[in-house]
Amino acid sequence: MPELDEVSPLTLNRLSFYLRCLRHLQEQGIQRISSQELARRYHLSATQIRKDLAQFGEFGIRGVGYEVDVLAEHLNALLGLDRPHAMVIVGMGNLGSALARYLGFNYGAFQVVAGVDKSPQVIGRKIGGFTVRPTTDLAQVVRDSGAEIGVLAVPAEAAQENYDALADAGIKGVLNFAPVRLKRRPGVPLKNVDLRINLEELAFFLRSP
Amino acid sequence: MPELDEVSPLTLNRLSFYLRCLRHLQEQGIQRISSQELARRYHLSATQIRKDLAQFGEFGIRGVGYEVDVLAEHLNALLGLDRPHAMVIVGMGNLGSALARYLGFNYGAFQVVAGVDKSPQVIGRKIGGFTVRPTTDLAQVVRDSGAEIGVLAVPAEAAQENYDALADAGIKGVLNFAPVRLKRRPGVPLKNVDLRINLEELAFFLRSP
Repeated sequence: MPELDEVSPLTLNRLSFYLRCLRHLQEQGIQRISSQELARRYHLSATQIRKDLAQFGEFGIRGVGYEVDVLAEHLNALLGLDRPHAMVIVGMGNLGSALARYLGFNYGAFQVVAGVDKSPQVIGRKIGGFTVRPTTDLAQVVRDSGAEIGVLAVPAEAAQENYDALADAGIKGVLNFAPVRLKRRPGVPLKNVDLRINLEELAFFLRSP
Repeated sequence: MPELDEVSPLTLNRLSFYLRCLRHLQEQGIQRISSQELARRYHLSATQIRKDLAQFGEFGIRGVGYEVDVLAEHLNALLGLDRPHAMVIVGMGNLGSALARYLGFNYGAFQVVAGVDKSPQVIGRKIGGFTVRPTTDLAQVVRDSGAEIGVLAVPAEAAQENYDALADAGIKGVLNFAPVRLKRRPGVPLKNVDLRINLEELAFFLRSP
């Protein structure tokens, strides 16, 4: 098993994508697939698939391919999705509220259990399955809720202080929606969600011919 | 230049990522970089970088590397980011409102110019720089605003009909936030935003050792 730091963000992104493809195959009742067929269906590279998976074990059978269910379960466990993850949202404005509803929907492995905000107009509101608490209570909210993941849905200028507060509170990972580069703490992995990437992929298809 | 269908979503994702890396290098005043150094800094594969870029032209100079500004401008144009794209948001609830503000912020190439909703409580509200119009006026809103990209921020069960309505209205591409698989129309590319992928990447780092 490679060390965490040796797995590139693009590899993780591909593993996640492979899992999604396998879930799609499961929905269609497909039980076995070769790397070539997987590549053909989802516009991937068969060599890349084999190389990515070989890092983590022996999943395929030469000449037969992968057992879809077995590989899906392996990837699920590899990605840490075989147990639930509790999340706290920092910033319960429009984005935080949307995320509480969106992330709370149909996500076995991820559950929003708490939210904090600094605005007196928002504190005390019931959103999703919890009541919004003050940002100043963050450390206690993390402790009480057992949240492992913090979601930053605050304006750019408030993101660093809230990342630091989450790290101080013992959170294990942070998903950042604020459009700003943050200074990371060792041991508190940070994943930036940049919606521009999705827009850029779409813009490619709108190029003038 | 390869045909659009020959470029995989993962390649586009990487091109977007390379552009982001180059912007980061520009911020630091770095003018030249080799594929090896680019790979080392951002945990990428030098071979992959060279292969990806070679599809679209001759960007690097052997033994010298890439001119950061030149390559960034090439990728920018390649991704269709060298001109503005007008966007209309369908569904101006929490998510749509958050996207109107989020996407409208600091995004030269993408601008939210209009939003529609079916709720009488939301129609007529001023959000960002526009007034929300009824979903039933979508075709006219697209025509009046010149929107090229439609953003679906509606519940899953309303996503397909609104994708179809956007396609009928002549929209050129759709970014879908609804957690549902849509039936695509030829000529109307669709990009699904799945926040689970970001969470899955984060969960990987929270695995028990």
